[in-house]
Amino acid sequence: MMDCKQALNEAKGDLEAAIVWLRKKGLSVAAKKATRVTSEGAVTSYIHAGGKIGVLVEVNCESDFVARTEDFKELVHDIAMHIAASDPKYVRKEDVTPEAFEREKDIFRSQAIASGKPPAIAEKMVTGKMEKFYEEVCLLEQPFIKDQTISISQLIAAKIGKLGENISVRRFARFKVGDVGETVAVTKPEHKAE
Amino acid sequence: MMDCKQALNEAKGDLEAAIVWLRKKGLSVAAKKATRVTSEGAVTSYIHAGGKIGVLVEVNCESDFVARTEDFKELVHDIAMHIAASDPKYVRKEDVTPEAFEREKDIFRSQAIASGKPPAIAEKMVTGKMEKFYEEVCLLEQPFIKDQTISISQLIAAKIGKLGENISVRRFARFKVGDVGETVAVTKPEHKAE
Repeated sequence: MMDCKQALNEAKGDLEAAIVWLRKKGLSVAAKKATRVTSEGAVTSYIHAGGKIGVLVEVNCESDFVARTEDFKELVHDIAMHIAASDPKYVRKEDVTPEAFEREKDIFRSQAIASGKPPAIAEKMVTGKMEKFYEEVCLLEQPFIKDQTISISQLIAAKIGKLGENISVRRFARFKVGDVGETVAVTKPEHKAE
Repeated sequence: MMDCKQALNEAKGDLEAAIVWLRKKGLSVAAKKATRVTSEGAVTSYIHAGGKIGVLVEVNCESDFVARTEDFKELVHDIAMHIAASDPKYVRKEDVTPEAFEREKDIFRSQAIASGKPPAIAEKMVTGKMEKFYEEVCLLEQPFIKDQTISISQLIAAKIGKLGENISVRRFARFKVGDVGETVAVTKPEHKAE
């Protein structure tokens, strides 16, 4: 434990550098501990369209007891299936980088201008599209495919109420056969050195 | 097809920029086509240790016919299970960046020096470890967990011989509940604009 704290000090709080420092000292057990976040949960997959689309998702909770309940398993399965169908690019609004936001805005603006609308109308079209942007690309903001009246974050909130533990989507990956790109979305947790 | 070629010209061969260019023109169908690689295959998952470790892997072949054979499915399942157990960090040797290689070498050197060995011996230890490095971190170089006498690349080669089509591991992701990092390994295919 002391080694982890010293390593984080040496690395000025940079976790990756701290792990390198610990490994250099031969303290690989401590290095392993430093990569653990205090969380439980489950990794689940969903394979769609005869093996052409696949999703891997990690959902965290506070205890392994909750992670093993049918309620939790159902939630994780629903989220994995939703990601396969709805193709989100990020977990939360906060995960969208300013660069990605500006790139999308720029694309919508060019589309609006190309459609031949006057500048004032074009600008309104862009504003309208950007209002819907988060709902289209962020998992937590998307309407749940099995019940479009609630968002994924509301689906999770309902389970939190039922199970009495905090629950959060940690990360997901989505591959489609033949596509150049793949989606890998990760939320950065707070690091706890203990 | 012409739109794709023009977009790639405009973007000087940068695929992402080409897609942005096409989307700006409202040519989203062409943008979708530009992201397709001419390949078939399957995305498969493997969940280990009661939902604590999960793997998603895409393996490509040349026809959907081969992708649907039991032989191909068995191969993809074996590779996914192997990744869960052996925790590779890259698909191929060529995917290891020079920075990653140097970082590992630096860690081994510091370990050897910390062990108190004379510099000449320490240097030999580092050389020995780096010879094993690729075998430890690259999926294709790792000994297959179900038959340690062959490597994963030899396992694939045997299936290529049997099925008569080229087969390659395109990408994989590996999540472990509670770990800070995740492994996402991607091989970049040649882009074909057609």
